[in-house]
Amino acid sequence: MPAGDIGRVRRSDAEWLTGLDAWWRAANYLAVGQIYLLDNPLLGEPLVAEHVKPRLLGHWGTVPGLTLTYAHLNRVIRETSANVLFVAGPGHGSAALNAAAWLEGTYSECHPDVARDEEGMRRLFRQFSFPGGVPSHASPHVPGSIHEGGELGYALAHATGAALDKPGLVVACVIGDGEAETGPLAASWQAPAFLDPVEDGQVLPILHLNGYKIANPTVLSRLPREDLRSFVRGHGWEPIEVEGTDPTAVHEAYAAALDECLVRMAEGRRPVVLLRTPKGWTGPALRDGEPVEGTWRSHQVPLPGVRHDPRQLLQLERWLRSYRPDELFDRDGSPAPLVEAHCPEPELRMSANPLAHGWVQRELRLPPVAAHAVDVRAPGGRDAESTRALGRYLRDAMRLNAGRGNLLLFSPDEHASNRLDAVFEVTGRRWRLPTLPGDDHLDPDGRVFEILSEHLCQGWLEGYLLTGGHGLFSSYEAFTHLVDSMVAQHAKWLHMAAEEPWRRPVPSLNYLLTSHVWRQDHNGASHQDPGFIDHILSKRAEITRVYLPPDANCLLHVAEHCLRSRGLVNVIVAGKQSEPQYLDSDAARAHCERGLGLWEWASTDHEGGTDVVLACAGDVPTQETVAAVHVLRELVPDLRIRVVNVVDLTRLPVPHRHPHGMSDRDYTAVFTSDTPVIFAFHGYPWLIHELTYNRPNHDHVHVRGFSENGGTTTPFDMCVLNAIDRFHLALAALERIPRVADRLGTLRQRLLHHLDRHHDHIRRTGEDLPEIRDWRWVG
Amino acid sequence: MPAGDIGRVRRSDAEWLTGLDAWWRAANYLAVGQIYLLDNPLLGEPLVAEHVKPRLLGHWGTVPGLTLTYAHLNRVIRETSANVLFVAGPGHGSAALNAAAWLEGTYSECHPDVARDEEGMRRLFRQFSFPGGVPSHASPHVPGSIHEGGELGYALAHATGAALDKPGLVVACVIGDGEAETGPLAASWQAPAFLDPVEDGQVLPILHLNGYKIANPTVLSRLPREDLRSFVRGHGWEPIEVEGTDPTAVHEAYAAALDECLVRMAEGRRPVVLLRTPKGWTGPALRDGEPVEGTWRSHQVPLPGVRHDPRQLLQLERWLRSYRPDELFDRDGSPAPLVEAHCPEPELRMSANPLAHGWVQRELRLPPVAAHAVDVRAPGGRDAESTRALGRYLRDAMRLNAGRGNLLLFSPDEHASNRLDAVFEVTGRRWRLPTLPGDDHLDPDGRVFEILSEHLCQGWLEGYLLTGGHGLFSSYEAFTHLVDSMVAQHAKWLHMAAEEPWRRPVPSLNYLLTSHVWRQDHNGASHQDPGFIDHILSKRAEITRVYLPPDANCLLHVAEHCLRSRGLVNVIVAGKQSEPQYLDSDAARAHCERGLGLWEWASTDHEGGTDVVLACAGDVPTQETVAAVHVLRELVPDLRIRVVNVVDLTRLPVPHRHPHGMSDRDYTAVFTSDTPVIFAFHGYPWLIHELTYNRPNHDHVHVRGFSENGGTTTPFDMCVLNAIDRFHLALAALERIPRVADRLGTLRQRLLHHLDRHHDHIRRTGEDLPEIRDWRWVG
Repeated sequence: MPAGDIGRVRRSDAEWLTGLDAWWRAANYLAVGQIYLLDNPLLGEPLVAEHVKPRLLGHWGTVPGLTLTYAHLNRVIRETSANVLFVAGPGHGSAALNAAAWLEGTYSECHPDVARDEEGMRRLFRQFSFPGGVPSHASPHVPGSIHEGGELGYALAHATGAALDKPGLVVACVIGDGEAETGPLAASWQAPAFLDPVEDGQVLPILHLNGYKIANPTVLSRLPREDLRSFVRGHGWEPIEVEGTDPTAVHEAYAAALDECLVRMAEGRRPVVLLRTPKGWTGPALRDGEPVEGTWRSHQVPLPGVRHDPRQLLQLERWLRSYRPDELFDRDGSPAPLVEAHCPEPELRMSANPLAHGWVQRELRLPPVAAHAVDVRAPGGRDAESTRALGRYLRDAMRLNAGRGNLLLFSPDEHASNRLDAVFEVTGRRWRLPTLPGDDHLDPDGRVFEILSEHLCQGWLEGYLLTGGHGLFSSYEAFTHLVDSMVAQHAKWLHMAAEEPWRRPVPSLNYLLTSHVWRQDHNGASHQDPGFIDHILSKRAEITRVYLPPDANCLLHVAEHCLRSRGLVNVIVAGKQSEPQYLDSDAARAHCERGLGLWEWASTDHEGGTDVVLACAGDVPTQETVAAVHVLRELVPDLRIRVVNVVDLTRLPVPHRHPHGMSDRDYTAVFTSDTPVIFAFHGYPWLIHELTYNRPNHDHVHVRGFSENGGTTTPFDMCVLNAIDRFHLALAALERIPRVADRLGTLRQRLLHHLDRHHDHIRRTGEDLPEIRDWRWVG
Repeated sequence: MPAGDIGRVRRSDAEWLTGLDAWWRAANYLAVGQIYLLDNPLLGEPLVAEHVKPRLLGHWGTVPGLTLTYAHLNRVIRETSANVLFVAGPGHGSAALNAAAWLEGTYSECHPDVARDEEGMRRLFRQFSFPGGVPSHASPHVPGSIHEGGELGYALAHATGAALDKPGLVVACVIGDGEAETGPLAASWQAPAFLDPVEDGQVLPILHLNGYKIANPTVLSRLPREDLRSFVRGHGWEPIEVEGTDPTAVHEAYAAALDECLVRMAEGRRPVVLLRTPKGWTGPALRDGEPVEGTWRSHQVPLPGVRHDPRQLLQLERWLRSYRPDELFDRDGSPAPLVEAHCPEPELRMSANPLAHGWVQRELRLPPVAAHAVDVRAPGGRDAESTRALGRYLRDAMRLNAGRGNLLLFSPDEHASNRLDAVFEVTGRRWRLPTLPGDDHLDPDGRVFEILSEHLCQGWLEGYLLTGGHGLFSSYEAFTHLVDSMVAQHAKWLHMAAEEPWRRPVPSLNYLLTSHVWRQDHNGASHQDPGFIDHILSKRAEITRVYLPPDANCLLHVAEHCLRSRGLVNVIVAGKQSEPQYLDSDAARAHCERGLGLWEWASTDHEGGTDVVLACAGDVPTQETVAAVHVLRELVPDLRIRVVNVVDLTRLPVPHRHPHGMSDRDYTAVFTSDTPVIFAFHGYPWLIHELTYNRPNHDHVHVRGFSENGGTTTPFDMCVLNAIDRFHLALAALERIPRVADRLGTLRQRLLHHLDRHHDHIRRTGEDLPEIRDWRWVG
């Protein structure tokens, strides 16, 4: 729908209300049926205990507000042909969403075994919160949903992300007043500072104030009315209020309110609906004399004793019949014409919006990596800042996709600090608030989003990806833990979505973790935490990838691979500091494609066996490992050392743990079956043990990584503190090589002498020896 | 200070302004010195490059706002004797806090090597962001600080938690306008709905709008003025604005504003200061012709080239001298009388507030566990809900500590759902907004905090603990990932604080994770995630503890132990569902004290060796393990099985990994050195491998745990899906026992038959076989 049409609402005769109310009743009936019924879906016979599920699960309280809103949006769609995406914050009200999709026919199209007839209705009911069935949350099985709602707080951020680059789209976002207490949701109200009223879609928040959470009232519902209005106005939203307990009056008010919203949105204003209707509205008023409707008691199952208590069974039957199912469904169980008529045209159904199912994707054009490669003539022949090379690559990717609305970057105020600032040559930082002289690359249409909220960066990006866009989230490594729970939920979503054939895989969620643990020497302990990759690897292996490119050209190849991929969570860890470069573009491509491999040029075990394997993963560990080879050769010239570099961490485990896992044969060909392996690792050392504990030579694997030893010091001292520096690595190797055992005491002395020199220098100057940045420096 | 006195401000003659401004200049001088100087701290000679640090680190931009606020609060303290705790959200401005503490003498009292003289000043400067020195964040080394600020977003939550149970205290909380964009901070504005104006201290937020983050303007600073006022009014705060660029005018306005704040706070109102002063105020106006003061360029080091650029060096000297250090410091380097006179009385110094250093703690009285124990006559003789027993224990703990202001409970709306509702017999849910009939146990003075924000539960509890209170945070297991980053920061704080002898250990941060992965069968995949304990165990071992009590009496003993402890992060995982009880109170105490042990009563290896060790950790794995013994005995009556139950997970690793780690000898005595171990684990299986990979018998350890196989199903089917049920455990054991190898095919058939029966039953009824809850049921 062209944006200019939004306001031109043609509210027709009074029939709209009859049809709307019937649709609402039908959806409510279907929701109650899902919570309670195993059988007798149309109440063709009197309800008996055997028709009721033995275990009653589900969340009724939020349902009538969701169905009401869905019904009213359908009216708007029918009258204006608006393109609307529906985001249900109270995802645990998915009985409402299943019902809506079933009424619209989409449910049966996606799940043919659940047809739009009596048997289909029976199955719709039975499967809900039933073993082997569907959960009570708006999981990927729900047509039209891009939002689960199991973990609360992300509805408005997802809605905002979904609106980006979708001119003309309306993203209607129901926010529960419980969810509204969360941090991520509270921050999400800042969206108007970033949303483009023309090039992005409209976000229409509908704050449903039904008053209660599980057991408590909600904060926002009990604020003085004027305070709540004041609160939402603060970020530029315009409150429009709807309140009531009488359905007809509420229908009239809600319809008028949505019409007013459309008018204002067409004017570029930001309406928000404050909807006050009772929790569990139209459900049982009382249970055993205690109020249920309109209280926290209606949160889940209002009549929990139906199966054993004949009075509650009777209450349930009355409740179901209060929706007058005979008017709503034909004898075969399909929606009656009265209900059917309130459904939008098939292509306008919210439950069938192709944006929600990954069907609208504009292919990402990517520049050739080779053209952006750092010129590396010989391993270590030059230094470079890896992320700066990536910045140039992203700049050209932005250029190639100009006007295509398919690529956005997100970061908590760190693109320049992370040295990706080349992108500012072609686009700016999105900013819709006033500007001042001296502001740096602010742009009302910028394609770079910076807000000091990892939650919003993540939530916006998720919403954008789930509706077909491509993107990258760059962040300080330590602070990505802020979104641990969000990425866990997204990974679960991707995994479940892959099981629904009517959903297409969406572009992957790509992280660039820079400002990483080894270079947070100056910021101290609070900035030193490499554990995000541990967290990622605890999620489904089908979905999760972790890359540790050792230099710029590897970073470029990995980034290209991640940006092209779909359906994954890709984590790339790469430093922003100037550091040695090892591989030219071709070598980097081959190395990244293998995922891990022997570095011949750094190894000395070309003949006659291997004394020790020095393995490394991560840029700083790689630098120290290659340096350790030089240290070792200086000390014991005839040592046969093999250097193995790991880019793709998921090559390490066995194949049944991860699809990238190597066979034991391939693994042994690289790591050997009995040679000591000194593994210098970017993250917590136990992650390597966890990934390799059942490999043949695991007893010989000795891992050095970050062991929570940090503080305010120098980059090289960070390595020393965690014994991952070249001297400690060399010592660890020597200690495990039998043929140098007789000289070990002397060798150790020489290594400790180098460490002493290092300490002295730092104590005197506050800096590392400049030579230390050269991996050929041997002390 | 009695609350009634707060408003009685005695602003005296004009001298206050001279002294205040001098103190401010002195603090700014000391902050600039910390960022830049190695030597020549008093500028006794002309500044040369050698006086400047080789590596310039620190955050100047926020400093002048922090020092200004500190100076003005000092005026208030001197005039009213107010008890003020200072929370600096922009913790990376710790140069300001170090300066303030040094001026007040506290710094030297805590760090005697940094005296209040010229040499001390030199050391104060040199150590800042210097190897082996102190970080640029308000870490535990900063006297008066309870807040690091390295990871942004928690200032107001910490301030709110610190105010709880501290009548008369004023917690002044500076919030950066960058930090204000984060989710946790945005949610924190809800505090007035919970804070008791009489029994709690006053929280005074000071939102410092200096306009910029690292590279961007801030959202709140660019909102239309009226919108920002509207925003803060939304949650009941009353904005009081201070703005300016002329120091004298700002001093006058700020002093008047704080006086007004005191008056309003005494009336029970909630003022918030909106402070608009330039970023990097009083610093260099320009650098190479580009504006610095008042822009994002002043965020970190305004003159980064001082060491090599003589013009910048000159600029730095002029900048330092602009504070007129000769007026501010005596020739020996100590603060001049003009500055000294503006410091409060020693016992009122914010930097010496004993609340910040753990010196104010009211001992927690705990009821005897035995009196609350579940009566267990024989192992498995009864079922009970473990958390319900804990609820009664907590109720009586609340009773014992009534009026002592030292125990609070926090949860996102889940105390009743987690079956801790016995506490509502003695106290209620804190709620200061209007109530309605039917509200459940709301209480304006309640000691139970429920808000649907894990971030606020965590932040409030942290603030409360850091100021000497005791508490417990109970939450759904999966959603504790929401606070991964917060607990990581708290653990780092505790570890660093333990190194400061002038800080006393504060009560531990205690988690109760219930509604855990094995009982989220109905809620589906989004609620199934046991990874929080993995995250916790990646932090310093000195600080972290994880307990998996298998039954109610073990839960009680563990909870008592945790509540008595100090300086730790304790995670307790325990189910809320009715489940078998094994140990009476004495046995439970002994078992928990050992941390793990052989369960003789469940074992059958009393003579003649051990065929298999069945190990378990967690309530559901324990139930299935004990059941597996019965299954195995039914199949092979003479099998010699050893059952080992693990309560304290940190007993498993070697002693150098964790202080609770057992010696290899003790470990082998329990787990044997060569017998197959089938380990049924509550969490992700690889955590057990990670903890035990270097144990003697690790090659024989086979772990079953949650492998991200879940969905909507039954509790027992959750076990089956992850192969941790009694039948799969029995099969795993049989497969590894040589002497049954000849019968294995038959035995496997019998086990698979039981599993088929289970599947059939679920498919038909949607429920587990009722017998399954009996651990003696063998199929």
